[in-house]
Amino acid sequence: MTKVKVGVAGYGTIGQRLADGVALQEDMELVGIADLVPSLSIRALRENDMIGANNVKYDLYLVDGADPAAFEKYDIPVAGSFEDLCQKVDIMLDSSPGGVGAKNKLIYEKLGVKAVFQGGEANSVADVFFHGYANYEKGVGKDYLKLTSCNTTGLIRAVDCLDRLIPVEKVAITIIRRVADPGDYHRGLTNALQMDKAPSHQALDLMTIMPHIDATGILVHTPVTHGHIITVLVTPKEGKITKELAIEAFRKHPRIRTVTIDEGFKGNASLFKYARDLGNRRGDMYEIAIWEDSVVESGNDIMFAINIPQESVTIPETMDAVRAAMKMQLTCEEGTAETNKYLKIGRFK
Amino acid sequence: MTKVKVGVAGYGTIGQRLADGVALQEDMELVGIADLVPSLSIRALRENDMIGANNVKYDLYLVDGADPAAFEKYDIPVAGSFEDLCQKVDIMLDSSPGGVGAKNKLIYEKLGVKAVFQGGEANSVADVFFHGYANYEKGVGKDYLKLTSCNTTGLIRAVDCLDRLIPVEKVAITIIRRVADPGDYHRGLTNALQMDKAPSHQALDLMTIMPHIDATGILVHTPVTHGHIITVLVTPKEGKITKELAIEAFRKHPRIRTVTIDEGFKGNASLFKYARDLGNRRGDMYEIAIWEDSVVESGNDIMFAINIPQESVTIPETMDAVRAAMKMQLTCEEGTAETNKYLKIGRFK
Amino acid sequence: MTKVKVGVAGYGTIGQRLADGVALQEDMELVGIADLVPSLSIRALRENDMIGANNVKYDLYLVDGADPAAFEKYDIPVAGSFEDLCQKVDIMLDSSPGGVGAKNKLIYEKLGVKAVFQGGEANSVADVFFHGYANYEKGVGKDYLKLTSCNTTGLIRAVDCLDRLIPVEKVAITIIRRVADPGDYHRGLTNALQMDKAPSHQALDLMTIMPHIDATGILVHTPVTHGHIITVLVTPKEGKITKELAIEAFRKHPRIRTVTIDEGFKGNASLFKYARDLGNRRGDMYEIAIWEDSVVESGNDIMFAINIPQESVTIPETMDAVRAAMKMQLTCEEGTAETNKYLKIGRFK
Amino acid sequence: MTKVKVGVAGYGTIGQRLADGVALQEDMELVGIADLVPSLSIRALRENDMIGANNVKYDLYLVDGADPAAFEKYDIPVAGSFEDLCQKVDIMLDSSPGGVGAKNKLIYEKLGVKAVFQGGEANSVADVFFHGYANYEKGVGKDYLKLTSCNTTGLIRAVDCLDRLIPVEKVAITIIRRVADPGDYHRGLTNALQMDKAPSHQALDLMTIMPHIDATGILVHTPVTHGHIITVLVTPKEGKITKELAIEAFRKHPRIRTVTIDEGFKGNASLFKYARDLGNRRGDMYEIAIWEDSVVESGNDIMFAINIPQESVTIPETMDAVRAAMKMQLTCEEGTAETNKYLKIGRFK
Repeated sequence: MTKVKVGVAGYGTIGQRLADGVALQEDMELVGIADLVPSLSIRALRENDMIGANNVKYDLYLVDGADPAAFEKYDIPVAGSFEDLCQKVDIMLDSSPGGVGAKNKLIYEKLGVKAVFQGGEANSVADVFFHGYANYEKGVGKDYLKLTSCNTTGLIRAVDCLDRLIPVEKVAITIIRRVADPGDYHRGLTNALQMDKAPSHQALDLMTIMPHIDATGILVHTPVTHGHIITVLVTPKEGKITKELAIEAFRKHPRIRTVTIDEGFKGNASLFKYARDLGNRRGDMYEIAIWEDSVVESGNDIMFAINIPQESVTIPETMDAVRAAMKMQLTCEEGTAETNKYLKIGRFK
Repeated sequence: MTKVKVGVAGYGTIGQRLADGVALQEDMELVGIADLVPSLSIRALRENDMIGANNVKYDLYLVDGADPAAFEKYDIPVAGSFEDLCQKVDIMLDSSPGGVGAKNKLIYEKLGVKAVFQGGEANSVADVFFHGYANYEKGVGKDYLKLTSCNTTGLIRAVDCLDRLIPVEKVAITIIRRVADPGDYHRGLTNALQMDKAPSHQALDLMTIMPHIDATGILVHTPVTHGHIITVLVTPKEGKITKELAIEAFRKHPRIRTVTIDEGFKGNASLFKYARDLGNRRGDMYEIAIWEDSVVESGNDIMFAINIPQESVTIPETMDAVRAAMKMQLTCEEGTAETNKYLKIGRFK
Repeated sequence: MTKVKVGVAGYGTIGQRLADGVALQEDMELVGIADLVPSLSIRALRENDMIGANNVKYDLYLVDGADPAAFEKYDIPVAGSFEDLCQKVDIMLDSSPGGVGAKNKLIYEKLGVKAVFQGGEANSVADVFFHGYANYEKGVGKDYLKLTSCNTTGLIRAVDCLDRLIPVEKVAITIIRRVADPGDYHRGLTNALQMDKAPSHQALDLMTIMPHIDATGILVHTPVTHGHIITVLVTPKEGKITKELAIEAFRKHPRIRTVTIDEGFKGNASLFKYARDLGNRRGDMYEIAIWEDSVVESGNDIMFAINIPQESVTIPETMDAVRAAMKMQLTCEEGTAETNKYLKIGRFK
Repeated sequence: MTKVKVGVAGYGTIGQRLADGVALQEDMELVGIADLVPSLSIRALRENDMIGANNVKYDLYLVDGADPAAFEKYDIPVAGSFEDLCQKVDIMLDSSPGGVGAKNKLIYEKLGVKAVFQGGEANSVADVFFHGYANYEKGVGKDYLKLTSCNTTGLIRAVDCLDRLIPVEKVAITIIRRVADPGDYHRGLTNALQMDKAPSHQALDLMTIMPHIDATGILVHTPVTHGHIITVLVTPKEGKITKELAIEAFRKHPRIRTVTIDEGFKGNASLFKYARDLGNRRGDMYEIAIWEDSVVESGNDIMFAINIPQESVTIPETMDAVRAAMKMQLTCEEGTAETNKYLKIGRFK
């Protein structure tokens, strides 16, 4: 089997995890990663002799403007330029800082390379705003896809899961957002909740991906780092989504963990601890979690709470995007199943 | 005019503020406060020569089991026993630790004294579960009233405000709860959001007070101290609550401040700072705040976010309760207006 | 008695408290305050009909570049321009943003007005870097004084207190810094301690004020808002500072509260709560606190922990600065005693 | 080579990491782990088919009082009883809850099994209070050793490192303690620093291990989870420890990472992130870090700041303890070198 050749632009919080995700897909080859400066993340890679997940070597390419001497200072080997990398790959996963992806696209177009952009880019950069479950088929064969952001990705997983059960009419969300990632010093809140203007962009994004649904919501930032929590109120077009039906559907979904407070999952920090205890690389988790003891009925509507592991939740759907764009699998069922297999998602089911 | 004689049992976070609230009501007399130990709050009072709000002297009575020597050690004057206090008052405001109020009630009954209990007591302790706006008239002339808790008090203010506009059918809430008060060392969360089992008791309590409404919701604890934020989705029985209608109604309500993110009210901590800047005693605020830029429509429903200043929000409704129980005013309109006047609520309208 | 006429430039966190401090000094007159925009602090003042501490009216003057329409929008009365204010006063307290004070100084010089700058300005702006206890006499009659920053002001109080007992040779400090004030949204840390390069500027500043002492130290930012904690190791030039001697000296100092963990002062948040319970305006405290049960001997050295209420600690020393500059009192003993009297500092002794 | 057979009692935060540490030592065999309830940590192990670090199977034994049905419910295989485990091992690593280790010791004595206890047990449980660098030789051949706690272990590494350079007379520390581990919901602080009575037990413990040094210090709890920071002031018996000498010694120590703020190590959270980026299991780090730009001289003394990764820092010294107790290596140099080799400590030097 010829493996699909993949590169990763930007080795930050998302880029590192994209590289790890590709390294785990046995039908993909991680050709290399690209970055601008010898960040601590790249220095950590160097400390491991450039060996990343699944014992794969991560070759480093330098983007335009990088200073080779800065990398030499730390004895970090460099394999070539960003264009060198692009010329060797079939598809780029672009997790550059917001806005840079649009510039990189000029190179991708020039070299005839496909690309998957992350949530920070404008929707206009892509042919399709993509989610592995909600619109996989729309991405099949496309050149430029953009992933939903972390909150939206997890939210759509849950809403799509119910929508397949009973068509959904309306969604109202409250996002209790972690304000920073572990290790962030450039942003943070201290003893404060912070309001965003409503409606939240996540609700708007959901409507772009699932246009038959009316969505709105409010986002509040909170001073924590280990996962967003979203409460979701879902109104069906007709009929009633019972608590039992909803829980049963969530339990069957490979990318959803159903948990309870009673068994010890007290909040977002429990899930981070559990992922560390699993020995997951970086303490990451690909699944969202839904608390079964949060599920309540409101008339015909259903309400529940999701945990979103913000650093890693988009990785599976990005692997799906590669599969769709490269026509590796032509349907959601096949594409997500392959991704899940290599990422060992759903092994706990 | 003969002033209604009021005592306060328990000089903790709520008790101190109840005493201050009574001291400000010119048609009430604060006969005294009662407590068990020379807490830092009582020592702060001593440092002020027992002078509290509005230049009123706060006489201290000792509850059963208190050690007079412990008070003597700090030179804190004692005016008598808890029963002494009860014999001098018309009505007691009982903010003892949860469960103690039920025991105190035996004394109140024996001495023929009315009482208002706080949210920590069981509903069964009281003749009526009370809210100044939602059911004032039910409390008129009653002997034993119980106030709603802080979140429920603020929530009902907002829901009642809309319910008077268009009858409400359903309410779904997400409570983003501050987990501790400033200065609390006996409880706290560090870098964690914590789930409560749904439905939240606040939704259930709302239904007790407003039985024509179906309410449910989810509560998440967050590591902050300056105010809960609740998102509320309100479904009208018929018709539509538009954003404009809702905001207009909120603006007119004396105990609701409408604020915006643009003018600098970025979250719960902005409101605490604003209350300090107002020079409010203890940096307290009696009003809830609603962000105008959080109000969004969801079909015929309306969604918005409230800020609840947890330490002080129940004080006005407790003053209302005294007015109702003592028949000082017989209607919600008159009773709440008097409370508002003395607490200077609504002066900013 | 003719009162000394005082103005305040900048009505931010420090400026508000300076205005309040002046309003309490019965031998001073608060002529007015000046600011650039109708901040929430000024809007809070407006909500109180421009009445501030001690029932004093705070007239508002607009600094250069202010837009009068912005104030009119909120119905905030304006008394004149910044120069108008400067022409009416004997001395300005300049708590403008860092660097602006240096520009304002040109106006002060032109109009022959004295000024006291806050810690954010460069030392070169002033004739003397001032502390009410450590070098009051150096400020007597001077035109331009600069106050030490909050940490340094509190630290010097404690070190000066011991230095008067036994001359001090060396000081080594660890500053456990609160990273933001309550209500700050422009800075913050989430679940992180942050290092500053050593030595801390506070140690260097101490040496400028007390040049006979060798000082160094390390500063670590922590995600809290209610007061810095500093541990101080003091080495005497000769002899030994015993625990008993140190505690006795601290107890006598009017601007130091000695507290213990046992009586409930568990940390910085306890002191903030206590100040609120005292009914202090804004929940402020002018005194630093020293934990008696933190005091330990290390050979001949003494080590202890201080709490610094960062928003208000510099107010007394700034009042001292006015007294020195205006020759209201010529000695530290007389000057600080007057300040203490009007701010009711030491009433608990 | 016959491997030393090791068991682990208690599979909590420390126990999990002890098991991982043993699994990595190629001259040791992890016979099994023991616990009381099917905690989330054990359920995470089950989700991995009981495979832990280094692809080693972790057999589970049940301690007295455990309910086998509770484990069956989650399909967790059980290999036998606690005594079964003890009978198969040469030495037990006891990380039971504080106080339980003393009871377990009765079984160890009965069965002639050696044991290493963690910091939570009383010193009297052991023949020697042990640190791999400071007193390895005292542990050689001993039956019962007790490890220092996390802060003390890291602190002694640094102080011992300097003590080998120039004999140390005095140490004064300020511990800026992380108050909870990631995932802890049973303890926590919210927006508060909390004082402990001085002197801190860590200073006393250092004196027990290094009796020629006079140590004292103050501990302040802070609301963070990713590592303690300690500032240390070290006074030499004679001569001067220069900044250059100290940094050079720290750089050479295999279990110390020297880092700088400039290169991006801004605080404790940077180090946690770096360990995750390294792909270290659970995001752990065995080394302490010392900030080179925190090192300052104070006369002849030296002051600096250490980061202590509280969950994992004691693992290397516990492996050392096994080596000493089992006479695998007879000297500090040889014992610590073997531990370091298998834990890949010092690879970055």
